[in-house]
Amino acid sequence: MIKVSVMYANAPGARFDHEYYRDKHMPLVKAKLGNYCKYYTVDKGLAGGAPGAPAPYIGMCHIFCDSVEAFQAGFGPHAQEIMADIPNYTDQAPVLQISEVVVG
Amino acid sequence: MIKVSVMYANAPGARFDHEYYRDKHMPLVKAKLGNYCKYYTVDKGLAGGAPGAPAPYIGMCHIFCDSVEAFQAGFGPHAQEIMADIPNYTDQAPVLQISEVVVG
Repeated sequence: MIKVSVMYANAPGARFDHEYYRDKHMPLVKAKLGNYCKYYTVDKGLAGGAPGAPAPYIGMCHIFCDSVEAFQAGFGPHAQEIMADIPNYTDQAPVLQISEVVVG
Repeated sequence: MIKVSVMYANAPGARFDHEYYRDKHMPLVKAKLGNYCKYYTVDKGLAGGAPGAPAPYIGMCHIFCDSVEAFQAGFGPHAQEIMADIPNYTDQAPVLQISEVVVG
């Protein structure tokens, strides 16, 4: 299993609509990817490691798929529509990481 | 529920022993935190978003707890011992993020 982590930097003044992300954007992603997305999780940044430090990322999602190929097959045909929705909840560019799930 | 994400940058030439991390370090963390850690997950970085781009993080773990206070109660008394184990698997300093689990 792999996970695709989409991370939005917690830049000073960054805009991020957590409700829209949870209620509209991520359900859209799941609907478009269908069974290529086994499930997904969503995080809201609270804090960093040092006392008073901000979270590195204001929001994140993690999309779990059987393989990189499965993600690409599910995401590719809908990439344009999904990415066009980003300005509806943030002014930050997403940072992507694909990981192997070692312990899930 | 909150998650504490511990992320190790994929710096050029970074050292990271994924087997040690999975088989020794993370079980140590779980043993020390006890029930304060509900469960944890481990990721191995594979790739970034753009074709050929490296993963931003070479390895990550995510520690799930009932609250920030629960994490602190479990981690605090063992912080020194846990952090002293870091050089056994990496030369990278961990980046921490505490997040609220919005969708788990």
